[in-house]
Amino acid sequence: MRLAELSERSGVSTATIKYYLREGLLQPGRRVSATQAEYDDGHVRRLRLVRALIQVGKVPVATAREVIAAAEDESLDHHVRLGAATAALPAGPEPAEDDPETAAAGRTVNALLQHIGWRHDQELGKLYPAYRTLVAAVAALRRLGYPCGVAHLLPYARLAAQLAVTDLDLVEEQPTETGQIEAAVALTVLYEPVLLSLRRLAHAEESARRFRGDEGA
Amino acid sequence: MRLAELSERSGVSTATIKYYLREGLLQPGRRVSATQAEYDDGHVRRLRLVRALIQVGKVPVATAREVIAAAEDESLDHHVRLGAATAALPAGPEPAEDDPETAAAGRTVNALLQHIGWRHDQELGKLYPAYRTLVAAVAALRRLGYPCGVAHLLPYARLAAQLAVTDLDLVEEQPTETGQIEAAVALTVLYEPVLLSLRRLAHAEESARRFRGDEGA
Repeated sequence: MRLAELSERSGVSTATIKYYLREGLLQPGRRVSATQAEYDDGHVRRLRLVRALIQVGKVPVATAREVIAAAEDESLDHHVRLGAATAALPAGPEPAEDDPETAAAGRTVNALLQHIGWRHDQELGKLYPAYRTLVAAVAALRRLGYPCGVAHLLPYARLAAQLAVTDLDLVEEQPTETGQIEAAVALTVLYEPVLLSLRRLAHAEESARRFRGDEGA
Repeated sequence: MRLAELSERSGVSTATIKYYLREGLLQPGRRVSATQAEYDDGHVRRLRLVRALIQVGKVPVATAREVIAAAEDESLDHHVRLGAATAALPAGPEPAEDDPETAAAGRTVNALLQHIGWRHDQELGKLYPAYRTLVAAVAALRRLGYPCGVAHLLPYARLAAQLAVTDLDLVEEQPTETGQIEAAVALTVLYEPVLLSLRRLAHAEESARRFRGDEGA
């Protein structure tokens, strides 16, 4: 298809598509003349991912470019490509260095990962910014004196493991490897507000049940 | 205790405590002379909450003041106070108005809430910004063509209901009503990065398992 049709099918203006092409967020089309290029379904799908990252996830352009480069690197094994693409997404704050609460939080997180049987902490720590965000979040809980031991964190980790099964089932609905990686990145970003808002609604429901003796509608 | 001891016990500088007093984020102490006031454990606990909101949650001061005013309103029933305090927390983006995807997303969310048996959608929608964030998030998924029907959302809602049980168990560890409300607000904010980072680590684990045939450590 030509640029005009790509714009219509993706809902992205031609000016924005040209901007994404210049920024390396969208792969170039197949050139058919000096002034025209041909685009395909891969371009439509990629535009969905770029919009998910930039328009919904508010990911900076430079970061989106890294995420996409990782997703495109076909020299890597499927699960490594998938991991690299999601690991390039922006994560939360980094833990404070040389801080006793960070050190203690790191030990708690490692004990948690060991308990639940996830992969080796060192490996995760290096590959995944999420590991460092988790350490920072536990350090904040410790500093403020709120409960955050392995026993408190374990139910959250168990539920996260169940969520991952649900998430990966959605990803596997995509027929191609590249489509799966693009969906994994987009769904990571797009389902975060779904999860957080459902948790808050569930709090309202559960607290009405406990503190009002309400058994729900 | 005097101001100096409150500062030492809470880890908040006396200048910052005076700022929080001026801003109405911390209740005044009991005045014992023209220049001195006496503070108690309630002040130490309140400072933890204020730090959780402002320093960790990056909540604006005006919003933190609203959250605290709701938490303090002893004229309300316990579960209403709790709900009002957490509902005053900043939520995600608002849904676009007069937009067909927003309308369709609203129908999906209402069908989901009805299916899982949570309270009436209208009531939730008015009380909880999280309801509107959820509608906006589902509308974004629809607009981009990613899966987000009731069948897709239901497992997330079920897991959120389980999380709420875990969260409220932590809240109920606090012995007083005010302590429970303060903990509910702080844990809502402080456990969001815990949950999101655990979800990402669980993705890494689950994708290694599926796509590498790795059964974990």
